[in-house]
Amino acid sequence: MKLRCAVAGATGIAGQQFLVALQSHPWFEVVRLAGSERSAGKTYRHAITSPSGQIGWNVAEPMPSQFAEMAVVEGSKLDLSGLDLVFTAVESDAAKALEPIYAAELPTISTASAFRYETDVPILIPAVNGDQSALIRVQQEHRKWKGFVVPIPNCTTTGLAVALAPLHQTFGLEKVIMTSMQAVSGAGRSPGVIALDVIDNVIPYIPKEEEKVQTEVKKILGKLVGGVVIEPDPVQVSATCTRVGVLDGHFETATVALSRPATMDQVKAAMQTFGRDMTPATHPSAPERWITVHDDPYRPQPRRDRDADRGMTTSVGRLREETVLGPHGVKFVLLSHNTKMGAAMGAVLVAEDLLKRGFIKQR
Amino acid sequence: MKLRCAVAGATGIAGQQFLVALQSHPWFEVVRLAGSERSAGKTYRHAITSPSGQIGWNVAEPMPSQFAEMAVVEGSKLDLSGLDLVFTAVESDAAKALEPIYAAELPTISTASAFRYETDVPILIPAVNGDQSALIRVQQEHRKWKGFVVPIPNCTTTGLAVALAPLHQTFGLEKVIMTSMQAVSGAGRSPGVIALDVIDNVIPYIPKEEEKVQTEVKKILGKLVGGVVIEPDPVQVSATCTRVGVLDGHFETATVALSRPATMDQVKAAMQTFGRDMTPATHPSAPERWITVHDDPYRPQPRRDRDADRGMTTSVGRLREETVLGPHGVKFVLLSHNTKMGAAMGAVLVAEDLLKRGFIKQR
Amino acid sequence: MKLRCAVAGATGIAGQQFLVALQSHPWFEVVRLAGSERSAGKTYRHAITSPSGQIGWNVAEPMPSQFAEMAVVEGSKLDLSGLDLVFTAVESDAAKALEPIYAAELPTISTASAFRYETDVPILIPAVNGDQSALIRVQQEHRKWKGFVVPIPNCTTTGLAVALAPLHQTFGLEKVIMTSMQAVSGAGRSPGVIALDVIDNVIPYIPKEEEKVQTEVKKILGKLVGGVVIEPDPVQVSATCTRVGVLDGHFETATVALSRPATMDQVKAAMQTFGRDMTPATHPSAPERWITVHDDPYRPQPRRDRDADRGMTTSVGRLREETVLGPHGVKFVLLSHNTKMGAAMGAVLVAEDLLKRGFIKQR
Amino acid sequence: MKLRCAVAGATGIAGQQFLVALQSHPWFEVVRLAGSERSAGKTYRHAITSPSGQIGWNVAEPMPSQFAEMAVVEGSKLDLSGLDLVFTAVESDAAKALEPIYAAELPTISTASAFRYETDVPILIPAVNGDQSALIRVQQEHRKWKGFVVPIPNCTTTGLAVALAPLHQTFGLEKVIMTSMQAVSGAGRSPGVIALDVIDNVIPYIPKEEEKVQTEVKKILGKLVGGVVIEPDPVQVSATCTRVGVLDGHFETATVALSRPATMDQVKAAMQTFGRDMTPATHPSAPERWITVHDDPYRPQPRRDRDADRGMTTSVGRLREETVLGPHGVKFVLLSHNTKMGAAMGAVLVAEDLLKRGFIKQR
Repeated sequence: MKLRCAVAGATGIAGQQFLVALQSHPWFEVVRLAGSERSAGKTYRHAITSPSGQIGWNVAEPMPSQFAEMAVVEGSKLDLSGLDLVFTAVESDAAKALEPIYAAELPTISTASAFRYETDVPILIPAVNGDQSALIRVQQEHRKWKGFVVPIPNCTTTGLAVALAPLHQTFGLEKVIMTSMQAVSGAGRSPGVIALDVIDNVIPYIPKEEEKVQTEVKKILGKLVGGVVIEPDPVQVSATCTRVGVLDGHFETATVALSRPATMDQVKAAMQTFGRDMTPATHPSAPERWITVHDDPYRPQPRRDRDADRGMTTSVGRLREETVLGPHGVKFVLLSHNTKMGAAMGAVLVAEDLLKRGFIKQR
Repeated sequence: MKLRCAVAGATGIAGQQFLVALQSHPWFEVVRLAGSERSAGKTYRHAITSPSGQIGWNVAEPMPSQFAEMAVVEGSKLDLSGLDLVFTAVESDAAKALEPIYAAELPTISTASAFRYETDVPILIPAVNGDQSALIRVQQEHRKWKGFVVPIPNCTTTGLAVALAPLHQTFGLEKVIMTSMQAVSGAGRSPGVIALDVIDNVIPYIPKEEEKVQTEVKKILGKLVGGVVIEPDPVQVSATCTRVGVLDGHFETATVALSRPATMDQVKAAMQTFGRDMTPATHPSAPERWITVHDDPYRPQPRRDRDADRGMTTSVGRLREETVLGPHGVKFVLLSHNTKMGAAMGAVLVAEDLLKRGFIKQR
Repeated sequence: MKLRCAVAGATGIAGQQFLVALQSHPWFEVVRLAGSERSAGKTYRHAITSPSGQIGWNVAEPMPSQFAEMAVVEGSKLDLSGLDLVFTAVESDAAKALEPIYAAELPTISTASAFRYETDVPILIPAVNGDQSALIRVQQEHRKWKGFVVPIPNCTTTGLAVALAPLHQTFGLEKVIMTSMQAVSGAGRSPGVIALDVIDNVIPYIPKEEEKVQTEVKKILGKLVGGVVIEPDPVQVSATCTRVGVLDGHFETATVALSRPATMDQVKAAMQTFGRDMTPATHPSAPERWITVHDDPYRPQPRRDRDADRGMTTSVGRLREETVLGPHGVKFVLLSHNTKMGAAMGAVLVAEDLLKRGFIKQR
Repeated sequence: MKLRCAVAGATGIAGQQFLVALQSHPWFEVVRLAGSERSAGKTYRHAITSPSGQIGWNVAEPMPSQFAEMAVVEGSKLDLSGLDLVFTAVESDAAKALEPIYAAELPTISTASAFRYETDVPILIPAVNGDQSALIRVQQEHRKWKGFVVPIPNCTTTGLAVALAPLHQTFGLEKVIMTSMQAVSGAGRSPGVIALDVIDNVIPYIPKEEEKVQTEVKKILGKLVGGVVIEPDPVQVSATCTRVGVLDGHFETATVALSRPATMDQVKAAMQTFGRDMTPATHPSAPERWITVHDDPYRPQPRRDRDADRGMTTSVGRLREETVLGPHGVKFVLLSHNTKMGAAMGAVLVAEDLLKRGFIKQR
C-alpha cells in the first residue's frame, strides 16, 4: 500500500511538476489536491483552464490523466485526515500561513523559502546533508507539531551545493564565487518572466536570490552540533544571479578555493563517486549519478543536458585548476534542472529519504 | 582635407562596422576597400550579395550608399599609394600575412589578434593606456617599418579593461574573477554561431577567449618601462567565457580585489570621472562618458543599454562591496558593445588618438 | 505656440511610445499625464518604478527627461481645461469609461478598440481613408460632444490596410487571405507575453485578433456614403493571427485576389507611389514612403526593417503573381512596426492630419 | 533475424536522427555507416568530434552507444554486399551521385530531393499514398536496377500532405493556401541557420521550398494511372515559406477550398479516423494517430506538441469554416516534426511499409 499524499499549490508550475513526479511513484500516491481560492471547487482540468479555453499545463510531460477530474480544494481547507504527508508548492507568503497547519499534523515537504532560515528547520538534499534530518525531532518538540516542515533549497542553491559537497568532504572549502544564468521557468507564470525582458537580453538581477544562495549553501554544508543545532559552514560564498532566455536548467560558473591541494583528476574522481550509495535502487527519484562530469569543453549546455538522468543529475564541465581565489582551487561550470532536481522531484527525493530514515511512515 | 584610408576585410561584419563608423567621419575618409579573393573585382554591393539575391549587410545601420559601387580589391593587392592609414578587419591568419605588408608603409589599426602579443606592439584603448603608444617607435625601429600595427583588444577584454582602469589607478588591483555572457555577433557569419546552439541554451566555451582576456588585461594595464617595453600588471585575472542568445553586447560579471580600501561611493566616483578629458569634443568617436554607472539594479541589460552613447560607453551596474576575493573589494556587472566600442568604432577611436599624438598624419 | 495635449495611460508601453513620439513634436506639447489609480499622485518616474527599484521604461528610446518629474493623475480626474486634445493609450474597458468624458470636451485620439466599431466613428489611417474624418461631424452631432473620439486600427490591421490600399484604388480587391506572425510588444507588460510561451515556440491564437482585422480592413477601405455612414468594402478577408518570439514588428503573409489584371510591375508601382503627397514635409510624423518595396527576397525581416523610416513605413517584399485565390492576384509579405505606425506615432499622425483638416485646433 | 542496413550521410543531423530511429528497431539493424570524405576512416564518435573536442551530436536523444566505435566509410565506397537496404541522408548533389549506385543493388530510402520529381519515382507517405509504391516496378525496369530509390517528401510538405489527405479522400480538394513557419533544424549545421538571422526575427524566404511543397503535394495526392504513371492531383496549392526561431517542428497555417460541403465536425472526424489501420501494431514507427486534432485554440505549439506520439503525429488545431477561398472550406493550423516524421523516422516508416508490401526483403 502506498502512502497517501496531498499536493498543495497543485495548479502552479511547481505543483504540476509534483503531479508528474508522483504520477506513477512506487511509494507515494496523490489523493488530494489543493490550490488557490480561485481554483477551489473546480476539477483540476477546469482549474487550470483559462476562460478563453487555454489549458494552463506548463510542464513538458503530458498532464497525467488521473488528476484531470480530481477536485481542487482551497489550501487552508485541505482535509488532512487519512493522509500520510503533504507536498507544498506555494508562494512564500502562502507557505507561511499554510505549512504550520499541515505540519501540526503531517510531514510537510516544501519547495517554499518560508521556513528555510529557521534554526530548527533543515534544508535537505539527501546525499549532501541527509543527516541534518535529525533536526526534525528538535523542530517537533519545539513547535509541538506531530508532523514537521522540511524545505528543499532554492533551485539555484541546489546544483551548487551538490557540486560543492564532494569538494567540501574531500578537500575542504574556503571560498566560492559563483555567477548564475537562470532559466525563466523558475519564475512560473504569474507574472513569470516577460518575453520582452529576455529576448535578445540578459537580466542582471533577481531579487533576494543571491542572499538565498549564500545563506543556504553555508547551512546545507554546515555541521549538526549535538543533534540540536546547525552550525553554518565557514565557507565564504559570493553569488551574482542573472536571468537568461533559457526555458529550463540553471547554469552556473563557479570558482572555488579549497583548503587542501587537489589535482583535477582528484576533483573529478571526488565528484564522480559522490552519492554512489543513493541511486534509483535505494531511492526511486535519485539520479544514477549525483554528478556527471563532462570532458567535452562545450558541455554541459542547458538545453542539451538538463534532462540527463531524468533531470536529477548535476552536470559539471570545464574543470580547470584555478589559484586566483586561493592557493588550492578549481573552477568549473555546472547545470542543474531547476524544476526537476531543483523543485518537485527533488522534494519527492527528500520524502523518500525521510521515509527510509523513519520520519515519514504510513499512519 | 581628410586623411585617406582603406578598409581591409570590408565585406565581413567587422568591416561593415568600419564603413558605418567612418561614413561621415570628420577626419577620415574611406577611399579603398579590400576583401577576400572571392570579392575581388566586384563592386561592394555585388561582393556582399549572395547568388540567391540576399544582400549580406549585417549591421543595424543601413549600408552607407557611398560604398555600394566602390570596387573591392583582394587584400594583398591593395594599392597603398596615396593612403594615410589602413583599418583591418580580417581573421587572424589573414592578418598575419597582410598586416606586415600594410605596416611596412602605413599606420595600420587592426581588430585582429595576430600581433597583440608581440612585445613591440601595444594593445590600445586610448583613455586607458594611450601612453603605451610610445612603443610604436620601438616597433618601427625594430621591424624597419615606415608604418606600424596597433591592434585593439579582444572585444571581451575591452569592457573589462575599461571598467578596471579607474579602479587600478585609484585603488590598485590585486585579483579579478570574471564570467562573460557573450553575444553572437562577435562570431560573424562564416560560420558564425548556429541558431541550433543558442536558442534556449548557453554555450560554456569559446576557444582561446579566456586566455586572450587574461593576457590582454594585464598588458593593457601594464607599465611602459623606459619607453621600450610593457611590463604586464601583476593583477591576477581569471575568466570564464560563455555564449548566450544575445545579438550584440558582451555582458560580464566581475569580482575584484583592490589593493586599498574603497567605499562604493568612491568606486562609483572613480568610474564616473574616468576618461573625462577624452570626449567627442576631443576625439569624434569617444563616448561622452567612458563609464556609465547604473543605480537601477536591473541595469545594464544588453538589449536595452548596448547602444547608449553610440555603443561606446561601458555600462556598469550592481556595484556591491565584496570581500570574498580579498580584504578590499567590489563586485559588479558590466556591458560593452562588442561590435562598436569592442571593434570598428573602437579602432577608429584609436586612430583618432594616434593622430592627436602625431603617430598618424597626412602624407 | 504648440497645441497642449494630455496622454492618458501614459505609464504603459503604448503611453511611453506617445511620450517618445511627442517629446519634440513641432505642433504638439504634452502638458498633462494620466494613469491608473496606482500611479496617481506620483511623479512619472516614480509611477513607473517598481518597489525593487526597477525603472519600468519599456521602449527602445531613452525616457524623455522632461516627463520624469511631471505629476500623474488618475485618468478620470484629468483636468481638461486649457487642453487642445487628448491621446489615450488605455485598455479597452478603461477606454469605454474614459474616452466619452474626454470626447465630450476635446478631440481624443485613441489606440483602444472601444469605439472602433461604432457606426459614427471612423478608424483613421490618414493616407488611406483621411476622407472618412468627415464622419466626425456626425459623431459630434449624434453624441452632443464638443470633441470626438477617433481610434487608430488594431496594430495588425494597420500594415495590411496600408499595403492593400493602393491595390484597392488601382485594381480593386476581391479577396484577401492573411497570416500574421506578431511581435510580443503588442501585448504590453501586464501580463504581456510570458517568455515560457514564445521561446522556441509559436502561439497559434490571439483572442479576438482575427475578427478585428477582418472587420477593420473592410471599414477602413469602405466608402463614406452621403458623408454620414461608412459602407464597408465588399472585399472578403480571412486572417489567421499567431504570436512569435519577435520583440517589435508585425510580419504578415498576404494572398490577394484583385478585381482587374495587374502585372507585378504595376503592383509595385502602385505601392511605391501610394501616399506620396503625405510626407514629413506636410505631416511631421508621416513616413517618407508609405510603402517600401523590397527586391531582395530575404526582406523585409522584423528586426532588420521595422525601424526603417522611423518605424512608419510599411515594408513589402516577395511580390509574386498568384492565381489560386482568383484569376488576377498577387501574394506578398509585409512588415509594420506595431508600436510605432501601429500605435502611438500612428495616432500622432492622425492628429496631425485632423489638425490640417480643421478638426483639431488651438482653443 | 533483422534486415541489415547502412546509413549514408550518417554524421549529419538527419543521419543522426536515423541512428536514433533505428537504434532498437525490431526489424532493421544498422551495420554500416557512410559519410563524407572528411569522416572516412574514422570511428563514428571521432568523425563527429571537432578538433577542439566538441562532440557534434545534434539530436535531443543521446548518441546510441552501439555506433560510437563503428567505422565510417566514404559514401561511394560503401560495401553493399550482405546489406538488405540503405537509408540516405545526404545533400541533394551527393544524392544524385550516390543513390543510383546504391539503388542499382538495393532498396534505397532517401530524405534527399534528388529523385523526387522523376516520373518513375514515387514520394511516399505510407498512409497517404502507399499504393503509389507500385511505381517501383516501373522504375526498376526502366533503369535496370535491382534495387530502387524511394524518397520521402520535403519536411514542409509532409505535414501538409498528411492533413490534406483525409480532406482529399472525403470531400475533394480544390485549392490550398499555406504559410509555413519553419524550424531551424531543417537546415542542419553546415552552414545551417545563423543565430544572427533568427533571434528576434523572421526570415521571409527559403530558396526552392515553396516550389517543392507545391509540386510534391500534387504528386503525393495524385492518381497512379495504369500502375505506370502518377497523374498529379488538380488541387491548386500556393505556399509561402518562412523561417522562425524555433528549434524543431514546422508550423503551418492552411486555408482549404473543398469540392463538397463539410461541417467542422465532419472535417474533424475525417482527420481523426485517417490512417487508423496503420499504427505501431502494424508498423513500428507509425504514430498511434496520424492526425491529432486539438480543441484548445492555443494548440498545437511547436515546442509543446512536436514530440507528441514520438514526433510522428501531425497536430492540427483551430479548425474553422472558411469560405473566402471557395464555397466549401476550412482553415486550420498544423504542426509536423520536421526531423522525426519529416525526416529519418518518416523514412524508416516508409521502409517498414515497403517491407510489408514485399518491396524490401531479407536477401
